[in-house]
Amino acid sequence: MKKQAKFIAVLIIILFGAMTHVVNAQRPASADAAARHRKAHEHEIMAEYTELLSIPNVASDKQNIRRNAQFISKMLERRGVAVRLLEHEDAPPVVYGEIRTPGATRTLVFYAHYDGQPVEPAKWVGNEPFKPILRSASLEAGGSEIPLPEKGARFNPEWRLYARSTGDDKAPILSLVTALDALKHDGITLTSNIKFFFEGEEEAGSPHLEKIVEKYRDLLTADAWLICDGPVDQTRRQQIYFGARGVTGFEVTVYGPKRELHSGHYGNWAPNPALMLAKLLASMKDDDGRVLVKGFYDGIEPLSETEKKAFADAPDNDSLLKKELGLGWSEGGGGRLIELINLPSLNIRGFSSASVGATARNVIPSTATASIDIRLVKGVDHQKSVDRVMEHIRSQGYFIVESDPDDQTRLKYPKILKVVRQGGYNASRTSMDLAVSRQVITALESAYGRIIRMPTLGGSVPLYIFTDYLKAPAIGIPIANHDNNQHSSNENIRLQNLWDGIETMAVLLTMK
Amino acid sequence: MKKQAKFIAVLIIILFGAMTHVVNAQRPASADAAARHRKAHEHEIMAEYTELLSIPNVASDKQNIRRNAQFISKMLERRGVAVRLLEHEDAPPVVYGEIRTPGATRTLVFYAHYDGQPVEPAKWVGNEPFKPILRSASLEAGGSEIPLPEKGARFNPEWRLYARSTGDDKAPILSLVTALDALKHDGITLTSNIKFFFEGEEEAGSPHLEKIVEKYRDLLTADAWLICDGPVDQTRRQQIYFGARGVTGFEVTVYGPKRELHSGHYGNWAPNPALMLAKLLASMKDDDGRVLVKGFYDGIEPLSETEKKAFADAPDNDSLLKKELGLGWSEGGGGRLIELINLPSLNIRGFSSASVGATARNVIPSTATASIDIRLVKGVDHQKSVDRVMEHIRSQGYFIVESDPDDQTRLKYPKILKVVRQGGYNASRTSMDLAVSRQVITALESAYGRIIRMPTLGGSVPLYIFTDYLKAPAIGIPIANHDNNQHSSNENIRLQNLWDGIETMAVLLTMK
Repeated sequence: MKKQAKFIAVLIIILFGAMTHVVNAQRPASADAAARHRKAHEHEIMAEYTELLSIPNVASDKQNIRRNAQFISKMLERRGVAVRLLEHEDAPPVVYGEIRTPGATRTLVFYAHYDGQPVEPAKWVGNEPFKPILRSASLEAGGSEIPLPEKGARFNPEWRLYARSTGDDKAPILSLVTALDALKHDGITLTSNIKFFFEGEEEAGSPHLEKIVEKYRDLLTADAWLICDGPVDQTRRQQIYFGARGVTGFEVTVYGPKRELHSGHYGNWAPNPALMLAKLLASMKDDDGRVLVKGFYDGIEPLSETEKKAFADAPDNDSLLKKELGLGWSEGGGGRLIELINLPSLNIRGFSSASVGATARNVIPSTATASIDIRLVKGVDHQKSVDRVMEHIRSQGYFIVESDPDDQTRLKYPKILKVVRQGGYNASRTSMDLAVSRQVITALESAYGRIIRMPTLGGSVPLYIFTDYLKAPAIGIPIANHDNNQHSSNENIRLQNLWDGIETMAVLLTMK
Repeated sequence: MKKQAKFIAVLIIILFGAMTHVVNAQRPASADAAARHRKAHEHEIMAEYTELLSIPNVASDKQNIRRNAQFISKMLERRGVAVRLLEHEDAPPVVYGEIRTPGATRTLVFYAHYDGQPVEPAKWVGNEPFKPILRSASLEAGGSEIPLPEKGARFNPEWRLYARSTGDDKAPILSLVTALDALKHDGITLTSNIKFFFEGEEEAGSPHLEKIVEKYRDLLTADAWLICDGPVDQTRRQQIYFGARGVTGFEVTVYGPKRELHSGHYGNWAPNPALMLAKLLASMKDDDGRVLVKGFYDGIEPLSETEKKAFADAPDNDSLLKKELGLGWSEGGGGRLIELINLPSLNIRGFSSASVGATARNVIPSTATASIDIRLVKGVDHQKSVDRVMEHIRSQGYFIVESDPDDQTRLKYPKILKVVRQGGYNASRTSMDLAVSRQVITALESAYGRIIRMPTLGGSVPLYIFTDYLKAPAIGIPIANHDNNQHSSNENIRLQNLWDGIETMAVLLTMK
């Protein structure tokens, strides 16, 4: 038995080596060119990135946001890209660039955003948000600040660069221009017409994106949009996504007595709006998190066989995540997170009634409020979903109003609920079976081996602007490490992710 | 028919006149003496009250609270009362006084408190809390400030005096000393030995009351404690109460992920503590407000026939209250408020999870907290009641902790709830059938006709200190109007309530 085991082990090693060899044999020249170029120019690449990161980039900071746009324009122009700024009213300009490739029949648009989330400098440890520093590891893992390596010495790929937007979302911009340098150096020609569309107000909710896209529609024809944003998988494996969930939300307020009442003098008699709201919320979902609102899951566009197959290839991080998050269980009947995000969700994002803690008083509250968000998947309309929840609320005996009820309304209806609806947009999903989808998958897998293909991101990105409005496929290409602290203080990028990003862009720029 | 109606109307008038006459015929001389004296000395009475109200009386204001005690001591001494201050550690002194009545075999203690709720001067309209002013009516009814009437002119009984503690609880102190003046003027002798016990930290929760009562136990022997505190009925009819509900409370926190999570990336998978708490709270009570916790209503001491009969005599204010409070329904199966407060209650006094309104974010909250108070009735222990709720929570699958759970606990138990219990005390109820109870009822009804007899107050007062610890009956004698804004800004007393208070005290000081 021992001999047999040894034989099997050796066989496995041989087979694995062969497989690796096969993968390596297919590895595109562009990826190798990118890797070689990066190794030779790490100091220059980091210097250019540091300069870009040093320009404050909060969308509302008009002057600096324009400095970013101008700096990025110059970065592109240095690589021979024809650049213009797409202006619209008060919006930060979109940095738009074009590379026409002789003979190319395919046009790809690379989308990224150069603005970042607002910053709270007091919460940053060791550096200011726009003064990048290197660390030996993540802050959470005890990394400490380190100086730049000496000229000629290499950067350790596990080091991290700390500054706002290192991960979200200047990394793709740096990766793209560096990939162009590498390809040029090795004389590798592009295979598509390339457009760049770098937005400056994504973190502010892209309030003008639809208008800008409409205004410059003629410039934006393309066979696919590559949305370079978001983090890769927790296992650090390369991942791409073909959709994003839509989102909407609303806030409900339930009414009790017109003023807070003494709980002793009026308890058992005056209705308590906190209890009423608790019962209403409890009626919306079962213990396992399944939404009980009638029709909530109606119309979901089923996943294709290709999409279902993609789940099987994705790593199962759920146990790891539960441990990290201190969770003794998960909703969804023990289903996998990656699959569960392909269903719409209804989430209580907060509730409030009177006071808790030191300021709690023995009162029957006057009102109770809950704030709810809904995530949509392909086939489910955001407004219709909220309508269904409203219908559910009515079925629980509530009269729905849109502003605080007057005395007459209060006396007429026992149970009154005010709703304030917010805006929203629908989910979007590009088929993995499209030619361009297969081309992207094939290209990346030739460089990385099996990649993770997500039918949808759990989060919401207004991909519908590209897929539904411009009628173009949209595929998400993330670069940043998952633990990049995006949107928070101490944002960072792991250098290996940046290095990988350069190869990823080189591969996409030259894909078959 | 018209003639017949006229006849009936005349008959009613005659009968009503006769009834009124009967009541007036029994009206005690002490009540008339009090009324005559008050009419003749309104200006002096108001001057003395205004002076008393001008001394700030927040329990924590050591210097001023002692000034109150000294001022009240002098008020009593001027009426021949033997006064001493009962001192205990850091507590404001209790103003204690005695009148020995030759031949009297009964001893009554009049309890009141001279401290008031903390004040927020910015919320007072038109005067500072310790600078009393007169208004032509309540602020809510559009009353405006008016000057004192000229010397010799009468005060309109619907006028109101605005200042902290006008209603809660300096009114009984003024009423008592004025009643003593009136009785002395008419040479009417007292019928009981009288003790005064005026506390100085009731609004701070009477933290030393039990200790003080223990320390001065020998002084405090009595046949009954008359607790002069609280408001009269909303119809302004005289009301007395024979008990008060006990009270306790606790706060529960339910745990979700260790940090707030992106609702898109983790929704449908990560448990939402706000939903969990909503379901838990919903499980505690039915739609009609009845508590579903097993054993919650066990052990309730049943009401006597006399107590049940008292309900029949009480006015039904429920419809009026619903209108005032903007309520289209009430809990308790349409039962009367006055009866429903004779059951224990469980009230959500507040809840909170993440944020609502402008600061709401699309997150799965990390925790959700609810604060709950329980009111007890006679026969139900406050600690046992909380124990029963904890048992209920366990039956819903929760593991209960008393501090934030560590990682190991989090992973071991799917549903974890932290409880923080607060102190509390039990309900107290004195029988209406005791001799002294009947004497108080008879005395007051001889002055006012049918009075409202409440087996219990809805609110909580630590009457158990008198009834259970000192083993003395305790009967509540309120004076203030129900709409006196007690505990809030713009506290006031309606002058007729103050005038009635003087008569009430005169009647009690001389009751058979």
